Amino acid sequence: MANQVKYVLQESEMPRQWYNIVPDLPSPPPPPLHPGTREPVGPDDLAPLFPAELIMQEVSPERHIPIPEPVLDVYRLWRPTPLLRARRLEKDLGTPARIYYKYEGVSPAGSHKPNTAVPQAYYNAAAGVSRLTTETGAGQWGTALSFACALFGIDLTVWMVRSSYDQKPYRRTLMETYGATVHPSPSQVTNAGRAVLAEHPDSTGSLGIAISEAVEMAAADPAARYSLGSVLNHVLMHQTIIGEEALRQLEQAGDAPDVIVGCTGGGSNFGGLACPFLREKLAGRMNPVIRAVEPAACPSFTRGTYAYDFGDTAGLTPLLKMHTLGHEFIPDPIHAGGLRYHGMSPLLSHIYELGLIEAVAKPQSECFAAGLRFARTEGIVPAPEPTHAVAACIEEALRCKESGEEKVILTALCGHGLLDLAAYSDYLSGQMRDLDLSDDAIAAALRGLPAAV
Amino acid sequence: MANQVKYVLQESEMPRQWYNIVPDLPSPPPPPLHPGTREPVGPDDLAPLFPAELIMQEVSPERHIPIPEPVLDVYRLWRPTPLLRARRLEKDLGTPARIYYKYEGVSPAGSHKPNTAVPQAYYNAAAGVSRLTTETGAGQWGTALSFACALFGIDLTVWMVRSSYDQKPYRRTLMETYGATVHPSPSQVTNAGRAVLAEHPDSTGSLGIAISEAVEMAAADPAARYSLGSVLNHVLMHQTIIGEEALRQLEQAGDAPDVIVGCTGGGSNFGGLACPFLREKLAGRMNPVIRAVEPAACPSFTRGTYAYDFGDTAGLTPLLKMHTLGHEFIPDPIHAGGLRYHGMSPLLSHIYELGLIEAVAKPQSECFAAGLRFARTEGIVPAPEPTHAVAACIEEALRCKESGEEKVILTALCGHGLLDLAAYSDYLSGQMRDLDLSDDAIAAALRGLPAAV
Repeated sequence: MANQVKYVLQESEMPRQWYNIVPDLPSPPPPPLHPGTREPVGPDDLAPLFPAELIMQEVSPERHIPIPEPVLDVYRLWRPTPLLRARRLEKDLGTPARIYYKYEGVSPAGSHKPNTAVPQAYYNAAAGVSRLTTETGAGQWGTALSFACALFGIDLTVWMVRSSYDQKPYRRTLMETYGATVHPSPSQVTNAGRAVLAEHPDSTGSLGIAISEAVEMAAADPAARYSLGSVLNHVLMHQTIIGEEALRQLEQAGDAPDVIVGCTGGGSNFGGLACPFLREKLAGRMNPVIRAVEPAACPSFTRGTYAYDFGDTAGLTPLLKMHTLGHEFIPDPIHAGGLRYHGMSPLLSHIYELGLIEAVAKPQSECFAAGLRFARTEGIVPAPEPTHAVAACIEEALRCKESGEEKVILTALCGHGLLDLAAYSDYLSGQMRDLDLSDDAIAAALRGLPAAV
Repeated sequence: MANQVKYVLQESEMPRQWYNIVPDLPSPPPPPLHPGTREPVGPDDLAPLFPAELIMQEVSPERHIPIPEPVLDVYRLWRPTPLLRARRLEKDLGTPARIYYKYEGVSPAGSHKPNTAVPQAYYNAAAGVSRLTTETGAGQWGTALSFACALFGIDLTVWMVRSSYDQKPYRRTLMETYGATVHPSPSQVTNAGRAVLAEHPDSTGSLGIAISEAVEMAAADPAARYSLGSVLNHVLMHQTIIGEEALRQLEQAGDAPDVIVGCTGGGSNFGGLACPFLREKLAGRMNPVIRAVEPAACPSFTRGTYAYDFGDTAGLTPLLKMHTLGHEFIPDPIHAGGLRYHGMSPLLSHIYELGLIEAVAKPQSECFAAGLRFARTEGIVPAPEPTHAVAACIEEALRCKESGEEKVILTALCGHGLLDLAAYSDYLSGQMRDLDLSDDAIAAALRGLPAAV
């Protein structure tokens, strides 16, 4: 069709395996270290937190991991997701570029997060785990895991960053509708939370603190495990279903990407989209520029350092080699709560160090302007997180307008913004501000890094 | 597949025409009357409010109306929508019944309303109309028309029932994100609004009042027209794409419906699902029971009277022969704002009088209990309106459990509840109440009916 806007896969064409990029890289990423011994952590160190299957996936040398049938059964509720050509946006921009977006907002939770929440709930249930703990920032991850736990009969407790808990009561209601218990973080329920509150009674929280609380509670309860929504290898791997589908759909469209952009917080959406295309690039079958887009308020790739750091504030997790702003860094309360994490996926950090991807940072007002333009042309209101990707798409498409290049741009619209309308209200009423993050503030946060390994 | 849960159509299988049931009925519905002359209204009477194409569709004797290509182009953003088998809910209920739901929440606006908002915006734009007015109760319709007007370059002004305007600021933000202007109703902007406020300064509004305001403003502005989200024949006809798709999808599943249930406010969702199946029933090709489910707080079918009444409070519209509670009826502020309309589609009212469909009424607490059960088994949080349909599905499925009958139950899940979480919060915290609607209150409202024709 000349004006085709949507590329769909049959249910029978849905990928049956996740892709693990590690064996295809020129070198493996540095391993996580035990904070005491500074030795690589083994499966036993992780057993109090994760079921064996997920630990195996975290360190797997296999290129492909089959997706279990009960996971496919739930994926089928909304997968395969559509790939859409942004023809109305292209026209509005007057660009010769062709813009495609993979839309993950069709999931019941409204984002890409169920792609990993469902297998994580499944593997825990299969291992006999009856309780899970997790943290959530903006609420997308907590919502997705609440959804998944409802379907697999697991009791879930969520620590939700205090500022989001107060500002987004409906996010909390949504998790409770699925049956989860939600605490604000820092909370009085954990040692980690009480320690923060003792020093900062008015703390608005951070993902790092919330992780400390969720990890502490899981480790203390033999029937419970912990679940993380980004950062780790197995999480990024579950998200590769996005890129695997997009690869086939772009093929349907008869196009190959020149530029791939994705927003990055912990890295799972970006990694899920990019890794299958990076495999093709490493194999010489295509040669796209692959660009991460992070918020200027939390620029781990573009202004952080590459070092071993804790994944949480209290220092309960293994040390991870990653681009980090320091585990004590508290980002500005920007609306893209899902991108407010001090560190970046160790796998993506390694790939960045290998020079295989690039990164840019964007202030939120530019991102919301892009989100509004997208809503009024394409009809879908993006979540605050993917407005970063949309802004980068528009920037690239306008460059093409100047140069006349007919580039093919691909991105993932990882969620809709229907639960983030307070942010759009701020933007529409002119109340949105971009705060400058000073070099001094970053330097101060980096002084909290553990001694170099 | 033995455990198939989702039935999808190809884009090429998407219906290319809407279905008009009128020529297939044993008798046509009584015509709308001019309130002054009491004579049937003609196209000229409606020209200040609607473009010619929609007036033609309203009175068309044709069985099928082709869907214009630019409308199909927008439909393709989310259509065809999936038909899902509620296997997890069936298992949870222990029923031998097979429950299917057509899920319309995948549209960018989150409901079935864009099915008619898009053609209405298209036909107006094609006729050179640059401004539209409308009303909205819960906000689903206002959101859908804002979305459609953004895509077709029309300025939209929405009168939003005051109680929703105050309780749901994010609905307003969503319409504004798409570029619409939103007034609370009653407003100081119109004669109709000022008249209500003069008598009731604290009025929380009603759909009838908001319609008066939108109609008044459209009639006064030659460049503007008015758009209605339910009740009228052309609106129901646009929604038949739901039933046409579901018919093909159930065929894919190898099933034929024994019971079809749908929630009814003005009737567009129910009519859109039911009419294509009613055609099959009238032709003797299947024999389903077709059941409308309305809120006990606004029971036009089950406790209203069948009479000519105004569509709005101020009496600006033609007289419509319909099941009505009287145009002065102000329903309880239940959470299903989309079902709080004093009248019922004249077409469906006529079909009900012909004995072709039946109706039941449900209190909201039963509906929210059903919605919660659905969310925790099927993973999708229903909007308050379709919780009525879900409650009726569960009732039927439990009857099957007792009788052992393997009935096939079909419903439309016409929208998700992500913008209605305050209602779930009320329910979860035990604050939801069911008020009894007395016979006296209904009798009092019916005294406001215009003199019998």
